[in-house]
Amino acid sequence: MQPFLQRAISIFSRYNPNPDFHYNSDSWAGQNEAILNAKTRIEADLLISAKWIIPVQPEGVVLEDHCLAISGNKIIGIYSQIEADAIVDASEELQLPTHVLIPGLINTHGHSAMALMRGIADDVPLEQWLEQSIWPLEAQHVSEGFVLAGANLAIAEMVRSGTTCFADMYFYPDQVAKAALNANIRVQLASPVLDFPTVWAQDADEYISKATKLHDDYRHSELIHTAFGPHAPYTVSDAPLQKLSILAEEMDLPIHMHVHETAKEVSDALAADGRRPIERLRQLGLLSPRLVCVHATSLSDEDIDSLAEAGCHIVHCPESNLKLASGFCEVSKLNKAGINIALGTDGCASNNDLDMFSEMRTAALLAKAVAEDASALPAHQALEMATINGAKALGLENVIGSLEAGKYADITAINLDALNSTPLYNPVSHLVYSTQASQVSHVWCAGQLLLNDGSFTKLDSEAIKSDSAKWQAILADAEQ
Amino acid sequence: MQPFLQRAISIFSRYNPNPDFHYNSDSWAGQNEAILNAKTRIEADLLISAKWIIPVQPEGVVLEDHCLAISGNKIIGIYSQIEADAIVDASEELQLPTHVLIPGLINTHGHSAMALMRGIADDVPLEQWLEQSIWPLEAQHVSEGFVLAGANLAIAEMVRSGTTCFADMYFYPDQVAKAALNANIRVQLASPVLDFPTVWAQDADEYISKATKLHDDYRHSELIHTAFGPHAPYTVSDAPLQKLSILAEEMDLPIHMHVHETAKEVSDALAADGRRPIERLRQLGLLSPRLVCVHATSLSDEDIDSLAEAGCHIVHCPESNLKLASGFCEVSKLNKAGINIALGTDGCASNNDLDMFSEMRTAALLAKAVAEDASALPAHQALEMATINGAKALGLENVIGSLEAGKYADITAINLDALNSTPLYNPVSHLVYSTQASQVSHVWCAGQLLLNDGSFTKLDSEAIKSDSAKWQAILADAEQ
Repeated sequence: MQPFLQRAISIFSRYNPNPDFHYNSDSWAGQNEAILNAKTRIEADLLISAKWIIPVQPEGVVLEDHCLAISGNKIIGIYSQIEADAIVDASEELQLPTHVLIPGLINTHGHSAMALMRGIADDVPLEQWLEQSIWPLEAQHVSEGFVLAGANLAIAEMVRSGTTCFADMYFYPDQVAKAALNANIRVQLASPVLDFPTVWAQDADEYISKATKLHDDYRHSELIHTAFGPHAPYTVSDAPLQKLSILAEEMDLPIHMHVHETAKEVSDALAADGRRPIERLRQLGLLSPRLVCVHATSLSDEDIDSLAEAGCHIVHCPESNLKLASGFCEVSKLNKAGINIALGTDGCASNNDLDMFSEMRTAALLAKAVAEDASALPAHQALEMATINGAKALGLENVIGSLEAGKYADITAINLDALNSTPLYNPVSHLVYSTQASQVSHVWCAGQLLLNDGSFTKLDSEAIKSDSAKWQAILADAEQ
Repeated sequence: MQPFLQRAISIFSRYNPNPDFHYNSDSWAGQNEAILNAKTRIEADLLISAKWIIPVQPEGVVLEDHCLAISGNKIIGIYSQIEADAIVDASEELQLPTHVLIPGLINTHGHSAMALMRGIADDVPLEQWLEQSIWPLEAQHVSEGFVLAGANLAIAEMVRSGTTCFADMYFYPDQVAKAALNANIRVQLASPVLDFPTVWAQDADEYISKATKLHDDYRHSELIHTAFGPHAPYTVSDAPLQKLSILAEEMDLPIHMHVHETAKEVSDALAADGRRPIERLRQLGLLSPRLVCVHATSLSDEDIDSLAEAGCHIVHCPESNLKLASGFCEVSKLNKAGINIALGTDGCASNNDLDMFSEMRTAALLAKAVAEDASALPAHQALEMATINGAKALGLENVIGSLEAGKYADITAINLDALNSTPLYNPVSHLVYSTQASQVSHVWCAGQLLLNDGSFTKLDSEAIKSDSAKWQAILADAEQ
């Protein structure tokens, strides 16, 4: 048998949704015939033929020369070209002959409005960065208008780079919802909770009541999801944390929280009451499959055991951790402990972009060095972190995160006809180690086309850049 | 005074090439008048007006709304728009209203032909990677044709991403020279030296004689430079190293060598003869300003002192070090010791691209985490590593590495009119932390335009991709 056919069959059989049927050279002809004789034809709004499809689930599968069918806002199936020709009637067909289809990327942690602060304060230590630049700017300028303009900019950058769902923690989450609905992108809004007053609320009770109102406002939305966003163990005291734990259970919502961002956070907590932050959260009843811990550097073995036993999720933000010298997240160790690890860019002010391709690459590269093992975090795992693992952390794994019939048609196409993608032995390797976000050609969210061959279908990028320039002038003046 | 004018004057005065003259609001008008009345006019072949020019030398300067003039293969000056209008007569003018001009990037370490192995073996430990994938493939396939095709691919990728000079260590360096001359890009060929036979030579003497012949062949070339490329301390014995040291001195050539790539290299050397590799090189007389040490992980304080005292250069390859879990290069410490540190991508098989923007970002991010200091390796230093520091390591700092009158017109333009470059407080920050290589719009090498608004002027990228596909088929078959 030809090596190509061998590979094709091996790929095909791994993906076969019917475990009783195995494609092989004998049954191949029969199967085609069965399909050709099928009575029920499938109606689709769009049939995309792609050189490669990487569904992410089942794990490790790469389909060559396959088609994905969409009806309404959902994926209805993935077929070989022969199957599709035989049974699918599509209103529209799209040929992507040098492209790979993957699930829309999920950026599981960020502060979208901070896109307006991209590059305003670099190369300074975390405390100075927060206290001398970011917080004073936020105190002066954060408003509905700021958050809307920043979210518009961030969403445009995310769509352009293949992200179809993001988790956001910032003031005025209602404005982020507005921007997301306008762009038709999916978001989980972690409504902030703090002990101290800001422009958004006066005390923990007001933050929490705004969070529950936000949830009520969007409870029937297809695209807008909500969560509680207590900022960090060191900025939220015991009483509101316990309240959030109860409410999250009652309302069936995730809790999204910065946890163990730095070694100093841990040593300060130990000095304050003798407990590590994760131990305190455990005692408060916060550790559960609802808890999404962002950053998770400086973990002890006991911390890892606690998180694993409770089924907590972690969001790894490698570029932000590096840039702020926050410490290393031991991805390989956490992986071995069975903890679900998603990927996030964090806000633009500490990254300085929202590019999940760059973030996958940094995650995959860094994990190897940290584990002192070049086989740590292989490419396909990095892609899982940026897709299905994000969906799990957000509690959305039944509807997004992989290309499977019945899930929302949240899909990203990447054109691998590029010098930096040549030659091509393995598309998964290229996606993680050599793809530039500018190679993203098409993006669909809930079946709607948002990016068409590199051009926005809904967003006006000139207007967004011009709005951002206005805020730039205001913030630059403030920095003088 | 308006803040903008204040900033403009502060920027301007830092760049003033005449230390006796300072631009300020009083002298400004007089200076313009002096220029306007100047009798000698300047003839240029091309005048490029750019939104920003970052000459790299002097350090830290960002010029706004300035022009760069080229005559023949050299830069003849940088002028304010008013000065240029008054005194420059240019045959051709180019407006780059949203772009930044920087010196052409210098990729100070790589193996260009290995571009054909991009992604063929990922996520495996270094020894397995070398012994089970890379070396068997090289033993079977490396030939003149392989090296020429690989160099063509690598050079096209480098030009597309703003690199105008690269250091290359591989078999058949004459083929790389051919590819570089065809593309009009600058290269320093480190002609390989090993103790054992390969397709390129049978023993150290033959490698060395081929290296000196290569030097003779290209001694009068403007674009092709040569160096000795002993592979590593563990693959070249004392006698050839001493011979190289003498020849390098006589022929005035650099020695380009992998040194301390991993901790294992150091412990193996200690086990073998009780000396660390750098101590052995010191005793052999190799440490000097001619020696370019690639990787330099696992350095002791004594190693650093030895390298600093001798004036050796280091080439940091952060993405390759991470991907192969080779260890961390302590850039901040080396910087403090006054050692010149350049930047390289290494070969595509361990990176997997030749993108110096991504490499600058990884270097700047990683150095902070390794030094546990968010102020380590600020953006402007990362840019220096990718330009003037590379020129210093290659011994070419008098002719390339910065945008200065008298140097070759090796220039890269980047278009910052992009969502991921919005807003813009500091173009240097964006170049390092948020630019995608696809934003490179124009590239000149020795005054010749190689990339015009994203399109090659000399290279045929379709032919290069098709050649690469042929080699892909051959290598993929071998991997079965």
